[in-house]
Amino acid sequence: MTERILLDHGSGGMASQRLIKDIFLQHLDDPALRSLDDGACIELQGRRLVMSTDTFTVDPPVFPGGDIGSLAVHGTVNDVSMLGAGPRYLSCAYLLEEGLELDFLERVVASMADAARRAGVSIVTGDTKVVPRGAADRIYINTTGVGSLLLPEPLSGGGAGEGDAVLVSGSVGEHGLAIMAAREGLSFETPVQSDSAPLNRLVEKLLGEVPSVRVLRDPTRGGLATALNEIAAHSGVEMRIEEEAVPVQPAVREACSFLGLDPLYLANEGKLVAVVPQADAERALKVLQADESGRKASRIGSAVRGRAGRVVQRTAIGGDRLLRMLEGEPLPRIC
Amino acid sequence: MTERILLDHGSGGMASQRLIKDIFLQHLDDPALRSLDDGACIELQGRRLVMSTDTFTVDPPVFPGGDIGSLAVHGTVNDVSMLGAGPRYLSCAYLLEEGLELDFLERVVASMADAARRAGVSIVTGDTKVVPRGAADRIYINTTGVGSLLLPEPLSGGGAGEGDAVLVSGSVGEHGLAIMAAREGLSFETPVQSDSAPLNRLVEKLLGEVPSVRVLRDPTRGGLATALNEIAAHSGVEMRIEEEAVPVQPAVREACSFLGLDPLYLANEGKLVAVVPQADAERALKVLQADESGRKASRIGSAVRGRAGRVVQRTAIGGDRLLRMLEGEPLPRIC
Repeated sequence: MTERILLDHGSGGMASQRLIKDIFLQHLDDPALRSLDDGACIELQGRRLVMSTDTFTVDPPVFPGGDIGSLAVHGTVNDVSMLGAGPRYLSCAYLLEEGLELDFLERVVASMADAARRAGVSIVTGDTKVVPRGAADRIYINTTGVGSLLLPEPLSGGGAGEGDAVLVSGSVGEHGLAIMAAREGLSFETPVQSDSAPLNRLVEKLLGEVPSVRVLRDPTRGGLATALNEIAAHSGVEMRIEEEAVPVQPAVREACSFLGLDPLYLANEGKLVAVVPQADAERALKVLQADESGRKASRIGSAVRGRAGRVVQRTAIGGDRLLRMLEGEPLPRIC
Repeated sequence: MTERILLDHGSGGMASQRLIKDIFLQHLDDPALRSLDDGACIELQGRRLVMSTDTFTVDPPVFPGGDIGSLAVHGTVNDVSMLGAGPRYLSCAYLLEEGLELDFLERVVASMADAARRAGVSIVTGDTKVVPRGAADRIYINTTGVGSLLLPEPLSGGGAGEGDAVLVSGSVGEHGLAIMAAREGLSFETPVQSDSAPLNRLVEKLLGEVPSVRVLRDPTRGGLATALNEIAAHSGVEMRIEEEAVPVQPAVREACSFLGLDPLYLANEGKLVAVVPQADAERALKVLQADESGRKASRIGSAVRGRAGRVVQRTAIGGDRLLRMLEGEPLPRIC
């Protein structure tokens, strides 16, 4: 039987990793690519730069808290930032379906421009392709970003060590839930907005004050649980997380409970996980909390000896629960 | 009535230019973007780099002479090269339709890897998204490239001056015709192959020997006629071209004549137009012809005072014909 691409291959979870290892890395065997980080550190003219790319297919393209235009800026700005770099320039490539309303396109482009201004990045080059009706779903956007390292070496998912503290910059699950609600026409008592936002200024402050940061990662597809699994596997440590320490908005918690979802597996688009040495945890937390975008930052756990690659959550009632990497695709086209 | 995106907006011709001016440049008002060149020159850490992006949607994704994987490398390598730069690194972002055969994907990835090796560029970072059946047509790929300038200043479409010679590096129309034939199931007596190929080594040789080159452009969507119109408009000169001097393979000429097509409006993916000072034209032509990929290079005309933005073709029988920019989309999803 012919093996085929499943939605699951785009989830950012287990199937995505298998696809990358079994096909992409078999052929595109570059050390930068092999690191499986959010981007690559490259050398050009004796300078080290960071480069990251992402295609956005979010459905619906307009959702509470953002749209595909602003998301396409935030997503790549954040991926560049997670390598310990400051994004400066973005390219944007629009893939449009024949029949898309020009008014709608203009709204998205204006939102992209506004998001770029707010994040302090320049969109310097672009491309537009149009495919016939039925060969795309309205609009997809690729952005690719380049920037400069803020530290002597790029950060990687492999930097966590035993004893390190694990911080998250705010409440989790909002983006995933907002998209799901918008797509399915669900309405909650308290509406949930996507957290889509640029993290570059927060990262700049954090690394400026706490250059000992070991790992940064934005928990997008697959959510916080998947990001922690990636770090644990890459760093060869076990992660132990306190359920009660993970910030979740009450509205998100209620909706998740009602829908049978776990906020730890829902995508975020304006949050980061930071792994920092124990000794610098308090200072890092203060820096995050001092910024509007990190006000709800919390220390959620630690890296321990244990079993390499394992993530364990201590539940509110004191039990231990294994937090696996996302398997299965609960929600395609989340970003 | 709501204005909508038409296939024509992706043609690279008149409608594309209007879309860019009326929507993209209204909001994304960056000087680099405004130049409408194939990419942007950016400054990072005191160094000037070149960046270019392109999304590939070619239908069919495998065609005589290449596939979407190799094309995605060549297209961006060539766009970076046209700014007078040497491409070094590419990102690649795959957009896959649920149900795509994994074997097919692997074939495309292997072809991309091979094309990158041949062109001497590294693919350093990537992204994979999967959309449900019917939300894409099998596979689309975005590549974004960065590289270093080979000259003190980037080349631009605005560099041509009166008296300059216009060269083309080889025969035109093969890519467009090969795609059309593959899509429509046409077979010609002599099969036509796409010319998809990297131009970076040819550009490096040319600029090394003839640093006075004023404009480079790869005549992709919209073909040679559209590329000449862009240069003429941007440079404020008239272009005069000799029909008989433009190299066209006999098989392409016959097929075009049979199908009522003009090879000057068909896409190329391995050819360049060079505008050079009159005094250096012979030397530039020799450099091109000395390279395997430029063996059929020809001097096809000159920039003259005339009317700014106009392109005139002197036909084989001695008449003059206005060569306008492409209007209408003869063949969507050509690249």
